[in-house]
Amino acid sequence: MVIIGGGFGGIATAKALKRAIADVTLIDRTNHFTFQPLLYQVATAALAPSDITAPIRWILRRHKNTEVLMAEVREIDPARRVVRIDDELREIPYDYLIVATGSRHAYFGHSEWEPYAPGLKTIEDATEIRRRFLLAFELAEKSTDAREQQEYMTFVVVGGGPTGVELSGAFPFIAKKALGPDFRRIDTRKTRVVLIEAGPRILPSFPEDLASRATRDLKDLGVEVRVNSAVTGVGPDGISIGSEKIHARTVFWAAGNNASHLGALLGGPLDRAGRIQVNPDLSVPGHPEIFVVGDLVALVQDGRMVPGVGPAAIQEGKCAGKNVLRELRREPRKSFRYRNKGDLATIGRSRAIADLGWIRFSGRFAWFFWLFVHIMYLVGFRNRANVLLEWAYDYFTYQHGARLITDVERYKPPPP
Amino acid sequence: MVIIGGGFGGIATAKALKRAIADVTLIDRTNHFTFQPLLYQVATAALAPSDITAPIRWILRRHKNTEVLMAEVREIDPARRVVRIDDELREIPYDYLIVATGSRHAYFGHSEWEPYAPGLKTIEDATEIRRRFLLAFELAEKSTDAREQQEYMTFVVVGGGPTGVELSGAFPFIAKKALGPDFRRIDTRKTRVVLIEAGPRILPSFPEDLASRATRDLKDLGVEVRVNSAVTGVGPDGISIGSEKIHARTVFWAAGNNASHLGALLGGPLDRAGRIQVNPDLSVPGHPEIFVVGDLVALVQDGRMVPGVGPAAIQEGKCAGKNVLRELRREPRKSFRYRNKGDLATIGRSRAIADLGWIRFSGRFAWFFWLFVHIMYLVGFRNRANVLLEWAYDYFTYQHGARLITDVERYKPPPP
Repeated sequence: MVIIGGGFGGIATAKALKRAIADVTLIDRTNHFTFQPLLYQVATAALAPSDITAPIRWILRRHKNTEVLMAEVREIDPARRVVRIDDELREIPYDYLIVATGSRHAYFGHSEWEPYAPGLKTIEDATEIRRRFLLAFELAEKSTDAREQQEYMTFVVVGGGPTGVELSGAFPFIAKKALGPDFRRIDTRKTRVVLIEAGPRILPSFPEDLASRATRDLKDLGVEVRVNSAVTGVGPDGISIGSEKIHARTVFWAAGNNASHLGALLGGPLDRAGRIQVNPDLSVPGHPEIFVVGDLVALVQDGRMVPGVGPAAIQEGKCAGKNVLRELRREPRKSFRYRNKGDLATIGRSRAIADLGWIRFSGRFAWFFWLFVHIMYLVGFRNRANVLLEWAYDYFTYQHGARLITDVERYKPPPP
Repeated sequence: MVIIGGGFGGIATAKALKRAIADVTLIDRTNHFTFQPLLYQVATAALAPSDITAPIRWILRRHKNTEVLMAEVREIDPARRVVRIDDELREIPYDYLIVATGSRHAYFGHSEWEPYAPGLKTIEDATEIRRRFLLAFELAEKSTDAREQQEYMTFVVVGGGPTGVELSGAFPFIAKKALGPDFRRIDTRKTRVVLIEAGPRILPSFPEDLASRATRDLKDLGVEVRVNSAVTGVGPDGISIGSEKIHARTVFWAAGNNASHLGALLGGPLDRAGRIQVNPDLSVPGHPEIFVVGDLVALVQDGRMVPGVGPAAIQEGKCAGKNVLRELRREPRKSFRYRNKGDLATIGRSRAIADLGWIRFSGRFAWFFWLFVHIMYLVGFRNRANVLLEWAYDYFTYQHGARLITDVERYKPPPP
């Protein structure tokens, strides 16, 4: 059987199949699993890329029935039951296929905005955001024009979901505390961070009281929170909201997702975001041998869509893997049931909001809880120890340790 | 006054000028100082790039007289005493200029070899080598051709100086121990590492007995050491030594250096490698207001060239900075005296050689000594703690923690 994708969903599927008497091949275009909930910390120079990643084949090294291929899947042919990889179009046959290829950020039909407003899904995305964020201050320091300096020191984050909130909440602190003493010509306290949300409030997946607490926390940090503001234009010098213009040299995108294009090759019904409307057992209608897990799944449960978050992907991977095992043992499949263990979002340096269903809390305790949960879910002792060390260092010194700009030639500052 | 370059030499100069009643501008094209002696550990996935770098402006944050500009110096005009930066050719005037722009690896007139044999001077170089090294195993695992697999698992390092020895000594261990259990189709114990040196022995800067000890240690690790072998061709499928061909998909270059091209703009006499033949006080003949420090210096002392190593650059930076201070106080300048505190090179996992002048030693104790010295010279508590943690982890688990392949699209495997 073949698993495509080595994120939360794909890895969870492979783990469920560890003892299967079958050959499992996991294909991913990268060599590593990425702990996406902490990507924003790489983007904000708090953690190093290798702190939140681990080689997929290392994670699965004790799975003797599993091989890992680093390859790009070009095509899926459900009729012939083969997957084609790379340019040479090598074919890999499957009896069961699990597709866990996730999503990319989407620009609502405005893909021309992407060069000016990168999103945050991969390690490369995170280092791109880090590069732009740190470089903006270098360029401001070098500039001799006050207006230009302020444009470099203005950051717009589009999208008020957890990623947008976490990114925008981290910027003011780094700008003001960590970077402040290092610059001579600019006053980094003048850094302006604007969080823009098209809907009536930020964090729509959280209860209203927690979302308004988060709004208050963000405002305390100095983030301008703008709701009911749909972005109508993104360019090298900022964004437009209708006729209003916000001048900024650096814009980040956390506003929407589109499912992986591989979903469209499976022959199942798609929803508007390109996700597959799966059967209750997570298989594709018309293709009982193909399962879908993770962000690619469109499944309504108790009147709500199962969210595209890590814990859902893990549970789906487990369920899909077990359904394959059941079928191998000639047992009937079971339906997937999402159990929401809680929602967490962190705001800045020492605040967070938590909604565990049976209890809601916020503030510093929520932040410690967030810290604990994230350390626990990281893969491997090394990553845990490193992240703990970095966080302790940040916490006590107010410094961010990974302030590294590399591959500058890849970033061309937009023309003035 | 203006310092160009934020390596060992430039930073040491800035530190010597901390209390100067003068405006100091340090210009570097990156935002970070790189601890070059540990670059090979980034290249071999043992450390993360941010472990061995620190923002230059952070290092100099308490130097109130110093500003740091991240910019590329395009031109130096010694007649008008200005430096021009970036594309807009902005001019920065100077009364004193310290040039510490170092060197790049050189291909002895064969720059067409560079795409096939990257060198190791910057963080970007190190991640490029890491990418190629790790990707070679992924491609070998994916290959279905035994000959091709072996070519992917053959690594050639050209140049038997400390960098070549440290790189080639690190590869066999990672390949065999760390990567071994993770692969299914290839046997990583078949990894072949060839170290090639044109001269009669490796480590020519070390005493002969230590060099032959290093050769023995390398051979124990499984490295093929080839001396008296001048490379005559480098291509996508390997290298040539005269009529002999070594088939390898991955070649690294540690064989020669060329001084930074900025040296040629200073008007002083150059040696064959493009270095400036400075006065004893490190100033450029004909330009007492320009000093040169680091790898760009050509200076003979006691019949030997002062070597292009970190400690020499630090001592030169200190000397140049103090000579400027002396001149500001109307005192006479002093001549530079290089004091060699010792040479160290590490071989593989737990061996090293040390030549402190008054004592020479090798083996495990030398390796602990190497470890201690390198931790001590790292900048900042955070880097020290991180590196110590990573090394402890590597040492006890036999794993390498930073096995991350990013930006794969930048690497195109050479055609077969």
